Amino acid sequence: MKYISILGSTGSIGVSTLDIIQHYPDRFKVLGLAAGTNVDLLEEQCRRFKPIAVSLKREADAQKLQARLGQGGTEVYWGAEGLIRLATLDQVQLVVSAVVGIAGLMPTLAAIEAGKDIALANKEVLVTAGELLMRKVAEVGVKLIPVDSEHSAIFQCLQGVHKNEIARLILTASGGPFADFPSSQLAEVTPEQALRHPTWKMGDKISVDSASLMNKGLEVIEARWLFDVEVDRIEVLIHPQSIVHSMVELADGSIIAQLGIADMRIPILYALSYPERLSNPLPPLDLTKSAGLTFSRPDTDRFPCLEYAYQAAKAGGTHPTALNAANEVAVAAFLNSEIGFNDIAYIVKQIVDEHQYQKLSNIQQTLLADKWARKMAKSQLAAVN
Amino acid sequence: MKYISILGSTGSIGVSTLDIIQHYPDRFKVLGLAAGTNVDLLEEQCRRFKPIAVSLKREADAQKLQARLGQGGTEVYWGAEGLIRLATLDQVQLVVSAVVGIAGLMPTLAAIEAGKDIALANKEVLVTAGELLMRKVAEVGVKLIPVDSEHSAIFQCLQGVHKNEIARLILTASGGPFADFPSSQLAEVTPEQALRHPTWKMGDKISVDSASLMNKGLEVIEARWLFDVEVDRIEVLIHPQSIVHSMVELADGSIIAQLGIADMRIPILYALSYPERLSNPLPPLDLTKSAGLTFSRPDTDRFPCLEYAYQAAKAGGTHPTALNAANEVAVAAFLNSEIGFNDIAYIVKQIVDEHQYQKLSNIQQTLLADKWARKMAKSQLAAVN
Repeated sequence: MKYISILGSTGSIGVSTLDIIQHYPDRFKVLGLAAGTNVDLLEEQCRRFKPIAVSLKREADAQKLQARLGQGGTEVYWGAEGLIRLATLDQVQLVVSAVVGIAGLMPTLAAIEAGKDIALANKEVLVTAGELLMRKVAEVGVKLIPVDSEHSAIFQCLQGVHKNEIARLILTASGGPFADFPSSQLAEVTPEQALRHPTWKMGDKISVDSASLMNKGLEVIEARWLFDVEVDRIEVLIHPQSIVHSMVELADGSIIAQLGIADMRIPILYALSYPERLSNPLPPLDLTKSAGLTFSRPDTDRFPCLEYAYQAAKAGGTHPTALNAANEVAVAAFLNSEIGFNDIAYIVKQIVDEHQYQKLSNIQQTLLADKWARKMAKSQLAAVN
Repeated sequence: MKYISILGSTGSIGVSTLDIIQHYPDRFKVLGLAAGTNVDLLEEQCRRFKPIAVSLKREADAQKLQARLGQGGTEVYWGAEGLIRLATLDQVQLVVSAVVGIAGLMPTLAAIEAGKDIALANKEVLVTAGELLMRKVAEVGVKLIPVDSEHSAIFQCLQGVHKNEIARLILTASGGPFADFPSSQLAEVTPEQALRHPTWKMGDKISVDSASLMNKGLEVIEARWLFDVEVDRIEVLIHPQSIVHSMVELADGSIIAQLGIADMRIPILYALSYPERLSNPLPPLDLTKSAGLTFSRPDTDRFPCLEYAYQAAKAGGTHPTALNAANEVAVAAFLNSEIGFNDIAYIVKQIVDEHQYQKLSNIQQTLLADKWARKMAKSQLAAVN
């Protein structure tokens, strides 16, 4: 039996994780659930999974939930402290880190320091503090298993491969809903269009990032730390069919790829069961039913966010944090119809260009760079309008 | 330094193996070369690689070569005994088994018994005596590494995978030069057409087998023994682009695939260097330059040899040996323009149907079944004409 705490249980990954866990009652047991503001769904999850502790973002929501659940059963916490408590529950062995954004950083770090294995679905954690985090992972000796379909694919392809045999990592990208749009048309797209992802069903923020290819850029940075591979040996290929989830090119020219249906429950299950593999109730991939699998290089003229992410990754230090924070602000503004789609890239570029390089030696610098970039990005929003 | 003996050095695989070995003079050293009747090429190979011993099929050829090379250098042997001597040379660690057909069986077995690791390029060895051979491999504790691109692909995909996590093996097939021919047209194809394989450059026999899908059928039987997976969990998919060399579907629905350029030197190098991977001088695969990768189920109405191979595999015992022997006789007759292309399948079916099941308990049974099937197949040749 593996005891699990899920940070972000009411989000897309959290819900899929619980769906998986429910299929394996003799393998996994949920002890903790942390959510944001969705009290109703968390209440329902409490009744189904009977965790020993849960947490919400706000105190008022926590009190509301505690009242509904009654005393004596599940303990209800709140805020940043509640999140950290849920990340470090005594009996928990594996923490699913699926809080969106930089809010996931401190609880993930706390979980690692408490000796928990991590199933990582939050990409900002590695984007902003990958160097520090991976050092801590090695120090404490916990396992960090990626949940992202691309990184899970690479992680799977690398089983049994020696690090010095890796020639390149090849991340695939669906290309998003605007893959074939000319630049001029991109200026006019709406949030609703951006949320209609062609192959994956995901949360709002990541859907927009997927449309701008920033998602892939963040994944490049994430892969850089997760697999300790230099940025210029990480390549992105557009693969609209989303069947090959990513690949590894080895020293001898062989490419190992992981393929599967586009369902996050497969990489989630793998992260939960690793190093084992459990059979699952999903239909297997039938390659004879798929269109021809195609691969092309991304167009960074139309989707410059990917290029900016590469630049930030190469610059290192706090640059990826600034990139990520600027992007979060810009995407939120876009989703709120305050700015256009192309303005996201414009704002990111302004902030990353202005950012002063800082070597990353502690987590405080990450948080400061994040704050600085958010403030700067917000001031840019006005300029764009 | 790895000391190597190559059985079948003047054939397609043998020549590619020597090409690879020449690139890594500090990793591999050839000690033995066994050829059939190509005295000139073997002489040239002797001058380039300076083996301590070589062997030819016929005594007269051996004497001719010895005269050309002079005494005191390379020793020249001949016949079945010479082949076994080359397979068991004292210092040799790895034997590349690349003699075509059942002639490779005894020397491969001798090499295993002498404690040599095997790079296996001869598929008949496993087709006819896989059960006995794999038992011997386990008993002696040698490594048997497949050279065939499909089996090498699966072998690579299975690194780091537990046996009980394998759901299915998926062998890919180019479909051969006649993939789109209607049955009626198949009756009329010439040996020259059959030798024009669309994606791989191979020897004559295997090119015809590739056109009839018998090659894939033999590979199914081979995979069954090599990976100890039941026949009904081995699937064949037609993949005309020959880029995905084969795949493994795992318990959780994940598929791991190996991709690469269509060059036998990659699986050969892997078999030589295993468990290491060496970088190689070949250009890497550029997926953006390939057409869409497609997969479809094979049409066993037009290409019944694949179905017969599955049936023989399921029947077990000496049935695969009879299938293989009948096919060798029929293919030779087809290459000699004695019978039509569709007659190959017809003859194979007659012989397999007539064959009496025998549990395989020793190698002698294999050789007897082989002899019986050849005789029967030859008598069928007349009937077909």
